[in-house]
Amino acid sequence: MAIREKVFSTIVSVFKKHGAVTIDTPVFELKEILSGKYGEDSKLIYDLDDQGGEKCSLRYDLTVPFARFLAMNGSQYQSIKRYQIAKVYRRDQPAMTKGRMREFYQCDFDIAGVYDPMIADSEVVKIMCECLTALDIGEYIVKINHRKILDGIFQICGVPDSSIRPISSAVDKLDKLPWEDVKKEMTEEKGLDPNIADRIGEYVKLKGNKELVDKLFLDQSLISNNNAKAGLNDMVLLFKYLEIFGVLDKISFDLSLARGLDYYTGIIYEAVTEQSGPPKSKDGNQMVRKTKKDSDELDETTVGVGSIAAGGRYDNLVGMFASNKKGNIPCVGVSIGVERVFSILLQKVSLEQVKANEVEVYVMAVADGLLEDRMKICSELWDAGIKAEFMYKNKPKLQPQFSVCDRDQIPFAVIIGRDELNRGEVRIKDMRSKEQGEGGGASIKRSDMVNELKKRLGKA
Amino acid sequence: MAIREKVFSTIVSVFKKHGAVTIDTPVFELKEILSGKYGEDSKLIYDLDDQGGEKCSLRYDLTVPFARFLAMNGSQYQSIKRYQIAKVYRRDQPAMTKGRMREFYQCDFDIAGVYDPMIADSEVVKIMCECLTALDIGEYIVKINHRKILDGIFQICGVPDSSIRPISSAVDKLDKLPWEDVKKEMTEEKGLDPNIADRIGEYVKLKGNKELVDKLFLDQSLISNNNAKAGLNDMVLLFKYLEIFGVLDKISFDLSLARGLDYYTGIIYEAVTEQSGPPKSKDGNQMVRKTKKDSDELDETTVGVGSIAAGGRYDNLVGMFASNKKGNIPCVGVSIGVERVFSILLQKVSLEQVKANEVEVYVMAVADGLLEDRMKICSELWDAGIKAEFMYKNKPKLQPQFSVCDRDQIPFAVIIGRDELNRGEVRIKDMRSKEQGEGGGASIKRSDMVNELKKRLGKA
Repeated sequence: MAIREKVFSTIVSVFKKHGAVTIDTPVFELKEILSGKYGEDSKLIYDLDDQGGEKCSLRYDLTVPFARFLAMNGSQYQSIKRYQIAKVYRRDQPAMTKGRMREFYQCDFDIAGVYDPMIADSEVVKIMCECLTALDIGEYIVKINHRKILDGIFQICGVPDSSIRPISSAVDKLDKLPWEDVKKEMTEEKGLDPNIADRIGEYVKLKGNKELVDKLFLDQSLISNNNAKAGLNDMVLLFKYLEIFGVLDKISFDLSLARGLDYYTGIIYEAVTEQSGPPKSKDGNQMVRKTKKDSDELDETTVGVGSIAAGGRYDNLVGMFASNKKGNIPCVGVSIGVERVFSILLQKVSLEQVKANEVEVYVMAVADGLLEDRMKICSELWDAGIKAEFMYKNKPKLQPQFSVCDRDQIPFAVIIGRDELNRGEVRIKDMRSKEQGEGGGASIKRSDMVNELKKRLGKA
Repeated sequence: MAIREKVFSTIVSVFKKHGAVTIDTPVFELKEILSGKYGEDSKLIYDLDDQGGEKCSLRYDLTVPFARFLAMNGSQYQSIKRYQIAKVYRRDQPAMTKGRMREFYQCDFDIAGVYDPMIADSEVVKIMCECLTALDIGEYIVKINHRKILDGIFQICGVPDSSIRPISSAVDKLDKLPWEDVKKEMTEEKGLDPNIADRIGEYVKLKGNKELVDKLFLDQSLISNNNAKAGLNDMVLLFKYLEIFGVLDKISFDLSLARGLDYYTGIIYEAVTEQSGPPKSKDGNQMVRKTKKDSDELDETTVGVGSIAAGGRYDNLVGMFASNKKGNIPCVGVSIGVERVFSILLQKVSLEQVKANEVEVYVMAVADGLLEDRMKICSELWDAGIKAEFMYKNKPKLQPQFSVCDRDQIPFAVIIGRDELNRGEVRIKDMRSKEQGEGGGASIKRSDMVNELKKRLGKA
């Protein structure tokens, strides 16, 4: 939990730096709001028991409730930057694992509103990079693609409109499967003409940066498609703005990125860390999983397997919940995969290094217990804003008191004895100094104690 | 949400000052864990739909899940100070209000472990007082009583053992009902001998401080009861320790305080603010509600109607979930009624005064849009840890940019124009200064901008 709090405060401080506010949405939604938004994964939604009243479900992600909120309160929130850190709920393979529940944190940032093109999109990508850099999880790259470019590619290759989403979801597996397997899925499972699949293959294997955008502009058949052209124009702006924001070195324009969710309409992105890439087999080849569904990961609809943050533009989702067309509000957002961040950081930090509590001073007695004096001193420290504890015993022995300081890594001890108290003195000992030269610590006047501790704690 | 965050951070900083750590418990519990813990109110528990697997319910409070956690992980947590701020779920009168759901925050602090008597109890009361003082919600008093004293009173008055809990819950209504109504409930509804009720009445009307403890020690028939004597001995220690902790002026020993929940075994307490007392009728008499159930408040099992924080010692709850008697861990805790704190603070603060976001600098252009320059400057400010925004428009007009500063109470603006940029200058304007003398702000070198803003924001 100490690591969790650190991760959350790091992320929230980045969000606030960009002017975000937080909005709280309920953990329940009407069942009908959630249904039809998550495709196949809808079976993972938790429903509440019918105890009278309307049918409700637990939220599956934070995006749909946010969109529903905007649709209901749109007149107040025509434009907003909001973040939300909260838990979402998914039923983990209910047939296989008996009663196993899954709740986990999601951490979302979204910008809603009508703005000039690609400015908000670029800021969201910048924010994603700032968060990942601040979290200190190691190197990462941000794969970026554009739904309209993908759609354009599918159209010029000859994919029927009705097959675009299924074919798109096959393409999305290219980071984990070799092209042959993806092609097989397109042709054998989804009935695509193998020639069309091969034409798609030529495009979706492309990766690069701004030069790739320029190169695609030279592709006459691609540029003749309005979707592709609009998407490429967006990419030109995006690269220009991301260069200004100083994050171009993190970016990879990757035509194989498709993202699972149906509601994206513009740019899509996914950050991948070195650690979160696909595992390598012994001979250096990538080990591949048969299908995404073999994975134990269930937050993949928001953050794909192997990715640490992901998002995109979704211009029509709010409109699905609004009572009329005017109620629509375009949005762009990102979800940080905080559960994966926790596990990466946990690997880096050995548990011993995490100080569980934040106590700064332990108040102990050398003999006679002196409970009431210890309580009095603690109370003074608390009132002065110093984090302090004492042992809840009338007559504790000295050694157990020192052991608490060690266990909880408490930096200072106030040590009292009957004689010193009578002289109006206490001892302050720096528990981190391994030299025993200081012995029982430095004696100071009881009346100087609070100020001396504040000084030593850097609070004066 | 801005007020919420302030309330949470205030409370958490008090908890941490006392060495608390946070533990996260799941929002689901097995249905059987929750059942039988909340008496009549069990009908307010939300059950999950049976989609396969074990029957689960949503947590109703934070105490039972914490006790279940301790019972399962007791070997690791023989002693712990933990806090938790999280939502709990209750079905609000499902028969009457169609599908109305209730989720709200609870904010709990508990100390678990075997210690010398009343030390941890006193610290919890001290913490409750520190929180309420820090939250600045106005005057409050802390009513304190002891379950063993109450049980002793009922026993010496002649209440049959089987009636002690129902009679206790009738007594608890004395803060809202006149004695006559409470007596009626005891005698007519619960079949108690009216003479016994009258004898109880003599005791439970008593209120006072340490002197009341001394006075009760002189009551030979009370002292002859072991429960009452043990409770009074605890009260002697409690008053001594609370005096040391400097909170005695907040305390009222109130024999009518009984608290609804069955699981308390020692001292019980409830903080009441002036605002949260029962409403007065026009002629100055207290207006009374027929019964507690008439109230719209549902968090009353933890925080009673009219109270802002409440808690007590519960020494046997963990044992109910443990596999053997050794698994029991005594606990004492408090729950801060944060939802009520929010509403009290909302009344005090007019909404205009709440700054929604925390943006410190707004970057604007006087003409030509200068989008890329605004983006570049914002990016520099973000990288320097300054909270900054700009308008997502290629060519925004000046007035709307100033309006954003006003609306969001942003203290500083960086204003750029083509000529100034060419000279390597920007203007910084203090948006809070109403004097127009400064005009368009002070021109400074572009390269000094970050340092100048840091200085003005007190971050240098």
